[in-house]
Amino acid sequence: MRLRLRPTEDTFYDLFTESATHLVNGARLLAAMLDVDSDRPAIAEQMREAEHQADETTHAIVRRVNSTFVTPFDREDIYRLAGILDDVMDFMEEAVDLIGLYEIGELPAEFATQVEVLQRAAELTAEAMPRLRTMKDLEEYWIEINRLENQGDRSYRRILAKLFSGKYKALEVLKLKDVVDALEHATDALETVANTIEQIAVKES
Amino acid sequence: MRLRLRPTEDTFYDLFTESATHLVNGARLLAAMLDVDSDRPAIAEQMREAEHQADETTHAIVRRVNSTFVTPFDREDIYRLAGILDDVMDFMEEAVDLIGLYEIGELPAEFATQVEVLQRAAELTAEAMPRLRTMKDLEEYWIEINRLENQGDRSYRRILAKLFSGKYKALEVLKLKDVVDALEHATDALETVANTIEQIAVKES
Amino acid sequence: MRLRLRPTEDTFYDLFTESATHLVNGARLLAAMLDVDSDRPAIAEQMREAEHQADETTHAIVRRVNSTFVTPFDREDIYRLAGILDDVMDFMEEAVDLIGLYEIGELPAEFATQVEVLQRAAELTAEAMPRLRTMKDLEEYWIEINRLENQGDRSYRRILAKLFSGKYKALEVLKLKDVVDALEHATDALETVANTIEQIAVKES
Repeated sequence: MRLRLRPTEDTFYDLFTESATHLVNGARLLAAMLDVDSDRPAIAEQMREAEHQADETTHAIVRRVNSTFVTPFDREDIYRLAGILDDVMDFMEEAVDLIGLYEIGELPAEFATQVEVLQRAAELTAEAMPRLRTMKDLEEYWIEINRLENQGDRSYRRILAKLFSGKYKALEVLKLKDVVDALEHATDALETVANTIEQIAVKES
Repeated sequence: MRLRLRPTEDTFYDLFTESATHLVNGARLLAAMLDVDSDRPAIAEQMREAEHQADETTHAIVRRVNSTFVTPFDREDIYRLAGILDDVMDFMEEAVDLIGLYEIGELPAEFATQVEVLQRAAELTAEAMPRLRTMKDLEEYWIEINRLENQGDRSYRRILAKLFSGKYKALEVLKLKDVVDALEHATDALETVANTIEQIAVKES
Repeated sequence: MRLRLRPTEDTFYDLFTESATHLVNGARLLAAMLDVDSDRPAIAEQMREAEHQADETTHAIVRRVNSTFVTPFDREDIYRLAGILDDVMDFMEEAVDLIGLYEIGELPAEFATQVEVLQRAAELTAEAMPRLRTMKDLEEYWIEINRLENQGDRSYRRILAKLFSGKYKALEVLKLKDVVDALEHATDALETVANTIEQIAVKES
């Protein structure tokens, strides 16, 4: 049997992986929500549950920082990373919530591209989290997140152009813009997660 | 006569309490502004004055940090806390300003709930500030602010649903949404104040 | 011949000056974009190029932090300052992009005041950057940026009042408000640059 010398550290990496896994789940629910024939109230309920679980994980990270003497990297960086991961979930939940709240019917097809970018970025983030332990092999993750964020940005601007093309009434534009803004904020926050990890990696190297 | 060994520290707690007291005043003015029969230009003028005083307090905190050798907690945390308290005031002032600027008539009744939440959260914040000295008995404050923020969030979403129900014209929706967004940002910023204090308490304990 | 003992530091100041010089260029392109008879697609293309160059400078700063043992001030402050300078450019580029994307015709005359403020603030920032080396003679820069931000704020509110005066249709208001918000965010971010430099100066003094 091998002794585990730094058991508390393992748990931080596990918890960050758990946090990012909630985001994969959230992005999947968002994709399901786009289908107008889906059971939207049921999906919204699952999203609220996912957001609640993400909150629990965030609090578990904060509690662990508070009760641990030696943390694997700076306490403030742990708070910051946990906080931004939580922000991503809040934006995803906001998008799902607004689709229900505004009683939006069919969403323009361009929204699917935006959500695909978000789903892929969430998956990459969850895959990268266990690598925080060694802070190695993260370059590909940073490059790909950056590429996805650029793709998401182009998709976002295409949606804006369509919304303001004159095809939609002002009130409809207002509703759809709130949803697409929430999606864009979620994608941006995933890029901030990647940038934060890059800064931590530099400090710890 | 008792010697005061750490006179500079007292002043930091006093200044933070002063900063939060400006917010109690700001929230009270906001509540008064909701009444369409009130003297709105006079209230807006008082709000500008309150915001100006809050700026003065923020600058007094910054000046004190710069001229003090030993601060009661990290300099950067003092800046951060002072900055967020100042943000709350800016959002309140923005809400009052927009009501006048957009020449908004009667505000939907749901806005009163939103402002009540803000008022209660500002009062709790002001009451908690003197407890920074010992960093004790803050749990109740954190729990209650969190509960209020959730209540504020539900109220915010109810207002959005009403604004987009088809009862209001697009231009009216745009105006009212700017006001309710400013109120929501003020409530969120008060939660950030509480979270910041929690992080400082953890570091200092 | 004089030996340069701390050659790496020079480069940080040079790079920050370069970063702020991109903003002067960006603000100039924004001013050109306001003229409805200008070659807007060409200006938008130049703006994308300016934003790309600003990204390069930001990455050069980050790479230099990562490869330098002794930095002239805290690593995290360098990241923060580089990040906010980059934000200013992103907001400028967003404004130019939206004018094209929304196919906006003539912009209300008040937008020119907003852009003039931005242009002057960018110039002041670029002029202040070489003074980071000694952290002296920065007071005037902070005071003037603060004055400009207040002026920008008044201009912003005047534009909002005009947009909601009933003269514009809801969809037009939505478009113009997105542009003016991007300009306002750029001005606010330049104030954050000044505040960040003030905090660094305090820490290093």
